[in-house]
Amino acid sequence: MTESVRKIDAFLSEGLDGYIAETARLCAQPSISAQGIGLPECAGLVAGLLEQRGFQVWRIPTAGAPVVVGRLQGRSPRTLLFYNHYDVQPPEPLDLWTSPPFEPVVRDGALYARGAKDDKGEFVARLAAVDAVRAAHGGIPPCGVLFVVEGQEEIGSPHIAQFVQDHKDLLSCHGAVWEEGGTDADGRPQVSLGRRGVLEVDLSVETMRVDAHSGQADVLPNAAWRLLRALASLKGTDERIRIPGFYNDVQPPSPRDIAMLDALPDYEPHLRATYGVREFVLGRSGRALNHAVFEPTCNIQGLTAGYQGPGAKTVIPARAKAKLDFRLLPDQDPDDIFARLKRHLDAERFGDVEVTWIGAMWPSRVSVDDPLVALTARTGEEVYGLPGLLLPLGGGSSPFYAFAKPLGIPVVTAGVGYGRNRTHAPDEHVRLGDLLNAARHIARILEGFGDL
Amino acid sequence: MTESVRKIDAFLSEGLDGYIAETARLCAQPSISAQGIGLPECAGLVAGLLEQRGFQVWRIPTAGAPVVVGRLQGRSPRTLLFYNHYDVQPPEPLDLWTSPPFEPVVRDGALYARGAKDDKGEFVARLAAVDAVRAAHGGIPPCGVLFVVEGQEEIGSPHIAQFVQDHKDLLSCHGAVWEEGGTDADGRPQVSLGRRGVLEVDLSVETMRVDAHSGQADVLPNAAWRLLRALASLKGTDERIRIPGFYNDVQPPSPRDIAMLDALPDYEPHLRATYGVREFVLGRSGRALNHAVFEPTCNIQGLTAGYQGPGAKTVIPARAKAKLDFRLLPDQDPDDIFARLKRHLDAERFGDVEVTWIGAMWPSRVSVDDPLVALTARTGEEVYGLPGLLLPLGGGSSPFYAFAKPLGIPVVTAGVGYGRNRTHAPDEHVRLGDLLNAARHIARILEGFGDL
Repeated sequence: MTESVRKIDAFLSEGLDGYIAETARLCAQPSISAQGIGLPECAGLVAGLLEQRGFQVWRIPTAGAPVVVGRLQGRSPRTLLFYNHYDVQPPEPLDLWTSPPFEPVVRDGALYARGAKDDKGEFVARLAAVDAVRAAHGGIPPCGVLFVVEGQEEIGSPHIAQFVQDHKDLLSCHGAVWEEGGTDADGRPQVSLGRRGVLEVDLSVETMRVDAHSGQADVLPNAAWRLLRALASLKGTDERIRIPGFYNDVQPPSPRDIAMLDALPDYEPHLRATYGVREFVLGRSGRALNHAVFEPTCNIQGLTAGYQGPGAKTVIPARAKAKLDFRLLPDQDPDDIFARLKRHLDAERFGDVEVTWIGAMWPSRVSVDDPLVALTARTGEEVYGLPGLLLPLGGGSSPFYAFAKPLGIPVVTAGVGYGRNRTHAPDEHVRLGDLLNAARHIARILEGFGDL
Repeated sequence: MTESVRKIDAFLSEGLDGYIAETARLCAQPSISAQGIGLPECAGLVAGLLEQRGFQVWRIPTAGAPVVVGRLQGRSPRTLLFYNHYDVQPPEPLDLWTSPPFEPVVRDGALYARGAKDDKGEFVARLAAVDAVRAAHGGIPPCGVLFVVEGQEEIGSPHIAQFVQDHKDLLSCHGAVWEEGGTDADGRPQVSLGRRGVLEVDLSVETMRVDAHSGQADVLPNAAWRLLRALASLKGTDERIRIPGFYNDVQPPSPRDIAMLDALPDYEPHLRATYGVREFVLGRSGRALNHAVFEPTCNIQGLTAGYQGPGAKTVIPARAKAKLDFRLLPDQDPDDIFARLKRHLDAERFGDVEVTWIGAMWPSRVSVDDPLVALTARTGEEVYGLPGLLLPLGGGSSPFYAFAKPLGIPVVTAGVGYGRNRTHAPDEHVRLGDLLNAARHIARILEGFGDL
């Protein structure tokens, strides 16, 4: 351990209480994007935290909430971007919180509040890391630091891709640490190399103008059956998606991906315990569950048709609707998949099934050979004292792509999570030790990034 | 026309205003079985109307609402049963009524109120017919008259079958006129020879204890997909039901049935106009739409799974549910079909799909050769002045079977309907001329029934 890293660790240990207080102050400000509550106020707090540290700060309006951008020069011309967000999920159901969601409180070694982990704790851990490297280097960080803190991540970041496109010069940098990261439930530091994309659509069909009595089901067309058959045309019981050309652009896992997957723990017991699953998809088990992330999916989010109350109603539904999401692999393109989906339904004579684009994110991966990956993994092992895990692809989706491609940068993950933070749920919390360790980890990345 | 029929018609024409008033008084008493409103009060009114006419009256409690039974001796030992009900559908949506549903009012030649047609107008038309035949025959009707007026028809008559089983002696009779009937929209009198049966079930499946993030859809099982595949196993795209043995007891239409179907009008224009249908089931058209009633059906009443609100939610539903009804032909048995459905799902490895019995009615038909059919058809043509239509089988279901089989009687239809009464809907009404004609028709049936 170098002298500067020793100074960093000492600085953070001494300053931890202050960073807990800073997180708590941010969490005390509700900022619920889904409900339009407190967003400008929270953006103001974020801007203030950056300004008081000498960052040059921009509050840039979008069609939604403002994005706060902060830039600080470093000793190296290379700049590391931190993507974060100041909005949080709604706190409901309120009665399941042990203490009120917007009255942060420390108990049992953790800070409890909505946003304590996602994403205000993550943001403050980064501020702490920047403070620590500056303290160890006479006030000037070893590399440039760029914060991009948006206010609509929890509702799907509808404007961030356009925002990046529109501000490429302002956002010019050489690498990024994503908004969240940390360890698995056993304390092993994880680095995620990317995320699948996603295409979300509504399928709806109307077979008649009004519902009819089910005594006429031999002649009047049932929208639920119609929708069900359209859905059945999308995916076989073998889980293979039947849209022609759907797999054209799928990059299969490389031998290195497979090696990384094989090195991951067996999460089957965890999944069984959490979800009470009887049988996994296609009867998968053990490490095959990890490998499945390299399959795209066609998931039904919801179905609705006809009468859904108690008892029965002898009705033929005139309308039926399904919500779907497709998780997409590199290099599948949601625009292309959407067009193929529509062509498939037309070709299968389901032209009456209306397809509506709800939203999309593109898949994105960093090369495992990128030096930022190695730096993040090595420093993570140093801080957490356990071998790190490389996740070749995350199953979910995130606007990685909105930064990675237009800015031409690698994106990695590091942060305060430990897998059981109750993110998005009542009693969300960040463990104080994780806040400290994430700051130590990110400070080490800042230490090394200028020389990569 | 005989002298007594001339007297009957004169009696009814003169008395019509009184019967309109009697219908209005019944309709002013809300009696909503689905909401448990006003049932004993309305049963009391019905019993009073029978008692004031000298009927021997029983108010018999059931596990639900009381059944009112009234019996009057006639000149012939043969007795005709009238099945009716004093309960009505809920009046909602209230804002679509031109006048309040429980404030009966005559306008444009019709009485408007909830229950004016279904079934209070039908009941009063029968009372009027009984009054008329008594007036024409010195106070004693030409055949015995038996009323069975229940209070839970609009919620599926859950207790009527057991009620009939428990009171076979009290209900002993030789034929019945069902609670509703009348003409088609063009004024042609119809006689329905029976109804299909019905089996209503819920199918539900739980693949996990809790919903999961759709980023894990490659491993965690989706209840909506599971349910959808179970449903797809029930019926092919050819509409053929795939439950083994499902068709074992189906009686195909006889040559006489086919001749009756061919004699029916082409209802396609009416169906197209009413429902705005693009394409009928299996592309049927013209008179093939009438023949389809001899096919049993598997209808989805409703589907529910996962997220159904606006936008999207990246969720894998842990639970999904469908409501189904099967319309059954003579001599299919709902008990047998239910057992076969469960065996089929088990055999197709859908043992995790839970099947719940919601309700059932058995199919029932009267022989076209029964003299009551000919009497009803002949007198209908006499009253309405147009050739009658024999419907070999109605597509819906009704507790015909609950009376026909245990009492060993033929059941026919006659009544005040004209196909556009807005039954169950806002602005329900009975046309005053239909009230008169139904009473004339039923009085003629009473005239002839004693000598059949």
